[in-house]
Amino acid sequence: MSTTQIPWQERPANSTDVMWRYDANPIIDRYAIPSSNSIFNSAVVPFEDGFAGVFRCDNKAVQMNIFAGFSKDGINWDINHDPIEFGAGNTEMLESDYKYDPRVCFIEDRYWITWCNGYHGPTIGIGYTFDFKEFFQCENAFLPFNRNGVLLPQKIDGKYAMLSRPSDNGHTPFGDIYISYSPDMKYWGEHRCVMKVAPFTESAWQCTKIGAGPVPILTDEGWLLFYHGVINTCNGFRYSVGAAILDKDSPDNVLYRSQPYLLGPAAPYELVGDVPNVLFPCATLHSVEEDKVALYYGAADTVTSVAFGKLSEILDFVKNNSL
Amino acid sequence: MSTTQIPWQERPANSTDVMWRYDANPIIDRYAIPSSNSIFNSAVVPFEDGFAGVFRCDNKAVQMNIFAGFSKDGINWDINHDPIEFGAGNTEMLESDYKYDPRVCFIEDRYWITWCNGYHGPTIGIGYTFDFKEFFQCENAFLPFNRNGVLLPQKIDGKYAMLSRPSDNGHTPFGDIYISYSPDMKYWGEHRCVMKVAPFTESAWQCTKIGAGPVPILTDEGWLLFYHGVINTCNGFRYSVGAAILDKDSPDNVLYRSQPYLLGPAAPYELVGDVPNVLFPCATLHSVEEDKVALYYGAADTVTSVAFGKLSEILDFVKNNSL
Amino acid sequence: MSTTQIPWQERPANSTDVMWRYDANPIIDRYAIPSSNSIFNSAVVPFEDGFAGVFRCDNKAVQMNIFAGFSKDGINWDINHDPIEFGAGNTEMLESDYKYDPRVCFIEDRYWITWCNGYHGPTIGIGYTFDFKEFFQCENAFLPFNRNGVLLPQKIDGKYAMLSRPSDNGHTPFGDIYISYSPDMKYWGEHRCVMKVAPFTESAWQCTKIGAGPVPILTDEGWLLFYHGVINTCNGFRYSVGAAILDKDSPDNVLYRSQPYLLGPAAPYELVGDVPNVLFPCATLHSVEEDKVALYYGAADTVTSVAFGKLSEILDFVKNNSL
Amino acid sequence: MSTTQIPWQERPANSTDVMWRYDANPIIDRYAIPSSNSIFNSAVVPFEDGFAGVFRCDNKAVQMNIFAGFSKDGINWDINHDPIEFGAGNTEMLESDYKYDPRVCFIEDRYWITWCNGYHGPTIGIGYTFDFKEFFQCENAFLPFNRNGVLLPQKIDGKYAMLSRPSDNGHTPFGDIYISYSPDMKYWGEHRCVMKVAPFTESAWQCTKIGAGPVPILTDEGWLLFYHGVINTCNGFRYSVGAAILDKDSPDNVLYRSQPYLLGPAAPYELVGDVPNVLFPCATLHSVEEDKVALYYGAADTVTSVAFGKLSEILDFVKNNSL
Amino acid sequence: MSTTQIPWQERPANSTDVMWRYDANPIIDRYAIPSSNSIFNSAVVPFEDGFAGVFRCDNKAVQMNIFAGFSKDGINWDINHDPIEFGAGNTEMLESDYKYDPRVCFIEDRYWITWCNGYHGPTIGIGYTFDFKEFFQCENAFLPFNRNGVLLPQKIDGKYAMLSRPSDNGHTPFGDIYISYSPDMKYWGEHRCVMKVAPFTESAWQCTKIGAGPVPILTDEGWLLFYHGVINTCNGFRYSVGAAILDKDSPDNVLYRSQPYLLGPAAPYELVGDVPNVLFPCATLHSVEEDKVALYYGAADTVTSVAFGKLSEILDFVKNNSL
Amino acid sequence: MSTTQIPWQERPANSTDVMWRYDANPIIDRYAIPSSNSIFNSAVVPFEDGFAGVFRCDNKAVQMNIFAGFSKDGINWDINHDPIEFGAGNTEMLESDYKYDPRVCFIEDRYWITWCNGYHGPTIGIGYTFDFKEFFQCENAFLPFNRNGVLLPQKIDGKYAMLSRPSDNGHTPFGDIYISYSPDMKYWGEHRCVMKVAPFTESAWQCTKIGAGPVPILTDEGWLLFYHGVINTCNGFRYSVGAAILDKDSPDNVLYRSQPYLLGPAAPYELVGDVPNVLFPCATLHSVEEDKVALYYGAADTVTSVAFGKLSEILDFVKNNSL
Repeated sequence: MSTTQIPWQERPANSTDVMWRYDANPIIDRYAIPSSNSIFNSAVVPFEDGFAGVFRCDNKAVQMNIFAGFSKDGINWDINHDPIEFGAGNTEMLESDYKYDPRVCFIEDRYWITWCNGYHGPTIGIGYTFDFKEFFQCENAFLPFNRNGVLLPQKIDGKYAMLSRPSDNGHTPFGDIYISYSPDMKYWGEHRCVMKVAPFTESAWQCTKIGAGPVPILTDEGWLLFYHGVINTCNGFRYSVGAAILDKDSPDNVLYRSQPYLLGPAAPYELVGDVPNVLFPCATLHSVEEDKVALYYGAADTVTSVAFGKLSEILDFVKNNSL
Repeated sequence: MSTTQIPWQERPANSTDVMWRYDANPIIDRYAIPSSNSIFNSAVVPFEDGFAGVFRCDNKAVQMNIFAGFSKDGINWDINHDPIEFGAGNTEMLESDYKYDPRVCFIEDRYWITWCNGYHGPTIGIGYTFDFKEFFQCENAFLPFNRNGVLLPQKIDGKYAMLSRPSDNGHTPFGDIYISYSPDMKYWGEHRCVMKVAPFTESAWQCTKIGAGPVPILTDEGWLLFYHGVINTCNGFRYSVGAAILDKDSPDNVLYRSQPYLLGPAAPYELVGDVPNVLFPCATLHSVEEDKVALYYGAADTVTSVAFGKLSEILDFVKNNSL
Repeated sequence: MSTTQIPWQERPANSTDVMWRYDANPIIDRYAIPSSNSIFNSAVVPFEDGFAGVFRCDNKAVQMNIFAGFSKDGINWDINHDPIEFGAGNTEMLESDYKYDPRVCFIEDRYWITWCNGYHGPTIGIGYTFDFKEFFQCENAFLPFNRNGVLLPQKIDGKYAMLSRPSDNGHTPFGDIYISYSPDMKYWGEHRCVMKVAPFTESAWQCTKIGAGPVPILTDEGWLLFYHGVINTCNGFRYSVGAAILDKDSPDNVLYRSQPYLLGPAAPYELVGDVPNVLFPCATLHSVEEDKVALYYGAADTVTSVAFGKLSEILDFVKNNSL
Repeated sequence: MSTTQIPWQERPANSTDVMWRYDANPIIDRYAIPSSNSIFNSAVVPFEDGFAGVFRCDNKAVQMNIFAGFSKDGINWDINHDPIEFGAGNTEMLESDYKYDPRVCFIEDRYWITWCNGYHGPTIGIGYTFDFKEFFQCENAFLPFNRNGVLLPQKIDGKYAMLSRPSDNGHTPFGDIYISYSPDMKYWGEHRCVMKVAPFTESAWQCTKIGAGPVPILTDEGWLLFYHGVINTCNGFRYSVGAAILDKDSPDNVLYRSQPYLLGPAAPYELVGDVPNVLFPCATLHSVEEDKVALYYGAADTVTSVAFGKLSEILDFVKNNSL
Repeated sequence: MSTTQIPWQERPANSTDVMWRYDANPIIDRYAIPSSNSIFNSAVVPFEDGFAGVFRCDNKAVQMNIFAGFSKDGINWDINHDPIEFGAGNTEMLESDYKYDPRVCFIEDRYWITWCNGYHGPTIGIGYTFDFKEFFQCENAFLPFNRNGVLLPQKIDGKYAMLSRPSDNGHTPFGDIYISYSPDMKYWGEHRCVMKVAPFTESAWQCTKIGAGPVPILTDEGWLLFYHGVINTCNGFRYSVGAAILDKDSPDNVLYRSQPYLLGPAAPYELVGDVPNVLFPCATLHSVEEDKVALYYGAADTVTSVAFGKLSEILDFVKNNSL
Repeated sequence: MSTTQIPWQERPANSTDVMWRYDANPIIDRYAIPSSNSIFNSAVVPFEDGFAGVFRCDNKAVQMNIFAGFSKDGINWDINHDPIEFGAGNTEMLESDYKYDPRVCFIEDRYWITWCNGYHGPTIGIGYTFDFKEFFQCENAFLPFNRNGVLLPQKIDGKYAMLSRPSDNGHTPFGDIYISYSPDMKYWGEHRCVMKVAPFTESAWQCTKIGAGPVPILTDEGWLLFYHGVINTCNGFRYSVGAAILDKDSPDNVLYRSQPYLLGPAAPYELVGDVPNVLFPCATLHSVEEDKVALYYGAADTVTSVAFGKLSEILDFVKNNSL
């Protein structure tokens, strides 16, 4: 992997927050490529001497597709003007009505991409690339309806492990996080419920639905999982970010889970846009050694932003404020 | 397998219907065992010198569970007073909030049972037995939410094949039939859409949702699949029965599908009961050689009934009246 | 017109009801023609030396269409096995996704048929025949969505007049009766609201929606309009029949309107069927001279029945029990 | 009070049910008085040398009102043809858009009547009579929306006690039982939750809503409370009857509560009617000495029926099958 | 007509958009007249040596009405402080619960105004003026429920032609564009479906409902119709603007239709206001000779704004990006 | 009471509005205490030589609770970092799943606090304090579901009087204002409807639900009641502020009620936030002698703001613009 420096800003002087926003957010504008209506809910990874990413760019027909992009510094991105074309991986069935909300996860020898794939409704699409130039699509992991499929970056007991959130075909006013396993990235089973929405009276920001965010980060405490939580206000859904710590060997075992959110919609670009009050994390760049994480998130379903935090502080916060 | 004679009555003299009801329906009363509120949506198979079955008996607390039962003639049934207890099959995870709508399918050496299993909502439970005395539960096939999981009685390309209907956690006002494959009854993939609801203007009885019924029957024409279809009237869901013929080798390929229903709710025990206007097929006893099929179905979510037909006539009807 | 005797039975000895059911109801079975699933909500008129009718026969694919039929006595009907084929009347646009709930109205020289016509949703189709053999379709009267279009049998101020009920594309949980006028059966305007649903506390059987039933009958009191009213119970819609008296010259002026229903679902064939608790009137045969009316109605969206009453008593009842 | 013999039939020979139906049910027909569309959900008490009752008679305009009636044997009833007229009790505010589902409770010196009273929506109306000839109306107990207000026949700690079920203004897809206290039948407070709906997986017949039925019966075990429970099927609400035992001195303390129902809709007059599948208890006649209870209930929102049981057996059943 | 110069700004240097916003938007503030809460969704036309308009001004009771206004330059408007008073045109029926979303269309000798008129729900009101001082109201074109009635500025085959969108009585989660014809502005018929919502996967911004915007512009390519399209996000409806080209002689024949939107909510005054994310076009000022169009639109249901484009480029864009 | 000067700013020079905003709004930021996500819908009163208040501070788990705070000038507030702890008042039942939307009302000798209290859903909690240091909780006033309980600052006929709004357990798409009386702050009765939502066509800003705001102010005209009204737009609820004048002695008698709103969401902090377009008043500081009122309101469910007006002008406005 890359040893490039991840994006970073120190905590502002007047702040005591566990995580803080980049001061030049949003880093990617809604019109950053010619066809785009919005660029958000996207995934980045270290790649070669910089970074690569897979970006959700809805075009001006509001069709959803995913695009590759590259950056030297993780902040300034060159996103391809054409969406990713997939060749056949472990399937000839490349049908896809739409693709959105990608995640990218390096396992062993390649970059796996998972996304919300339109096959008679939303389900989890899987693909891979070695170089972000040539891409291969695999069998969908699950039957519809599903969203927020996120791979673990290591096999568990020799099997691939994927978090996901069973959904419906609409705006889905419910949703819990499950884990499933596969020996081969083709057949999936051993489905377990990992964590469910919180009671309204205990943690209302995550009482309507929750979904895995970035690829979990392996720490001494276990898997650090950033996730989004949703509350249904009288004026619509509001998406915030929390974090949980999953057992390293049995990731369906939740050790800790943040009762308060880490980040809630409060900046103008989070409060105003195509879908107001959405803060939706899909990726991190992080360095366990340097105790840093840069969290990439879509804001208001319109633009892409980044926030920062210290891994040790986040872990402490989750442990000390656990539901 | 058994060579016992399946239940049979000839078509009534005044009838030209493709399928006709047993004249002593219902064959199983709602109170047939002491604890039951209703016995319906149940599965029967030839077994030893008679028949065995797995029955949905909702008790008077309206808890749903499945019970084994036995019959010499397929009409008079002795149903155990206690529900099936499962030991561990390929899983230690035997959690089950409820069990309902079983199907039974003999493959190679054993009787596989699939049912709607309560694991954070409905999904497809799998179990097996060799003798209808000892039962073993396996991993759930899919993530919730799913219903109407029905196995094919032969492997396809060396893999188990299961039809199912992705659902939601309520009364599910939608629903199409999919097929999935597994090398080992544990991990499932290669999900394909088999058939969707029909347009209202072409076949309204199946315009709201459809679901596989009994285990498909292999015929020269392909797999004969009885299925239920639902129309949402202003006074609730109405369930009828139709049939489709699936390609023998590629069962996601629908060769024919009946535009008219084969059986719609019309008898008093189908029109009146806990849930009026439900005719829900879950099993057949059939003899390809004798050109006979006895279709077992739940009526009004209250009792169990049977209807008869000639396989050749049913196949002709489906081919000549295909959607 | 015909001078044939209309069907009639005297009021049962023990009854004081204003209207009473035919003792051999239903007069048309759901399976009266080979293709039918149900025959209901149909219209009859005097014709030649007997009667003719246009019948809603849903087939076993639950497709809705209208069929011509004939009877000597108004009770025993021969219904054609094939639906009506329409030629071009005042339009070449014969598109029709479905046809249901017909009414037949003789005006001047021909029998006009109106029905619920499927054109991107339900609207009012118009056709005519001189002989019930050859039929001609005209322009739809209105934009979708509309149902229960019923013509007045005389022109008002030289213009055709049609009652209708603006609707939606589903089961329509609302609905009032309007009148519109046309100089030529092609262009319609002068839309006026005639009567709206009643307050729940005053007449709950007609508090959810109402719709015109048979072609109104001209009496000395004005137009006698039988109409259906609907209450939304916790187990679905319940359809009853009431009557109103409209001003002869200004039929948007409601002179009287029955607070109690005249007929509510109470007979077994009204309480049980494809859609329980529906009593839906679409036609009358009547003789003002003999003071008799035979009201034809669909029962439980399954079969066709008839009820009787004396016109003078019905008029008195409506006047004495007016909302 | 009366020492008249309460209605009674012994358990049928072939039955092992805890409660059984009267073999001549329904005891009151829907058309028992001239104006009525249905007579159901009504209350009876011992009175003089026989019985008196307050009956819900919906008229043929489907207006809801309550009527007094009298019977020598508790089976054959003479119901007044005009609804109860109330004079002023502890209020001049006699506004009432409708009255339905009455209960009658003798306390100290008079018969208290509670009902669902229409005052800007449903709430609990209160009235009293000494003689079932003259009636007085009091202040509504609660703000809307509420239903199923049922008094305890003794004061608790010197205060009147009323069970009720907070509701909404429609068909109310939720509902739990609360208790409130009053020093004077005018001001109410000390509201406590008594019991809530049961989990679907434990007792589905009572998983949607529950409501108190007849006035509770004081036994050595505590207050025996019959109540209705509702499950929301895909074809509407289904109402069954269960029972609970409340602490004698602290009736918000539920000692036992039946997991199975005692009576579920199964007889034709319960399965078919204006609202199918409703079995709604509102009163008992009982003799603790003779160990008998006759339970009066509305069937299908259409007619009135009665069932019998032995108090000791019912208490045992509730204790042995407690949720 | 007027030969006054229409408002115009050249495309900003850095823009490649087909249409661009006026840099001093919004041109009319929400409080521009004393009574107003918001001024939006309004129509302007050339008039005398300047421009006249009909404006939707919701007052601070949030009552909806339409007001006349005048401008020399099309940017700065004097709007009357009192709403338009209508005299009788071809009707005495001037009932109007509310008036909103006006369009103005000059045909032959007068300015026709169409609007959403409250008559037992929304339908299409029609009026006319010669001088914007005296106004006359005609019969409503259609039965309720309807919105977005827009006249063509020339007769088709000697008949007036009106686009409209059948609706319901609420926020209408569906909606397609139809055309109807009238010989006399009083009776309407020959209703044809013009265009329907687009499939979600092809053009999601217009997948929930669509409605005609300004009066169509006759070009060499056919009628240029700007229209609004709506997507239902998890936080509400989002309104964008697209365009279609209709056949000159048969305007129900859609020749081209833009897959991408031309303008979507992105400016602050479009994203924030009484109803966020609404961009609703109701009028153009245009010069075919100069190849210019100024599009007037309501922003966030709060203020009025204008955007510009070159007709030839818009036509090319629609043709080259057709659905 | 305090004689401290209430906060005040004169009407801006260019304004003719009856009420106007403080120019440094919002006065309390969402993060004003360390744990808070938002601080809004809060109540203030004169206290000692300054002011005290009870504040709704949702924490970053979005748990709702109420906090005491103090201010010298009514603008700059010190809010305690820990929520109010209540001791036992007239009850030992201190159960409270959540507390929000407090009001504070001084009566005779103490400060009464009412709030939305979580007891099996929202109902009205009551407490009191003498010093804003020690707090005592009383019995809930009503059964659930209720919100916006507001006391009158004087007894009426020797009884406490409370306005409230019966609600449901969700976002409540309905709601009218009632009044109830109590001799002792424990038992409540004599419930009367005070005012209902306005018809859409007359005053749409208050057509969905209304609720009492601050404690009413006694004036020569009667009780001046500020209240919120809600309209359900296609993008959610919009909350504005109006006022009514209630009869001094019979406060269920509404003398006047503003047809226009006094304040509608228009400032950025009202239009953007956790719940956009909410302006929710909960308290006033006022001086009848000085003819001044400062209205405290929550903005966008995020921050706290204040607006000013002259009492005489507000009274005149309500009288001159009454519904």
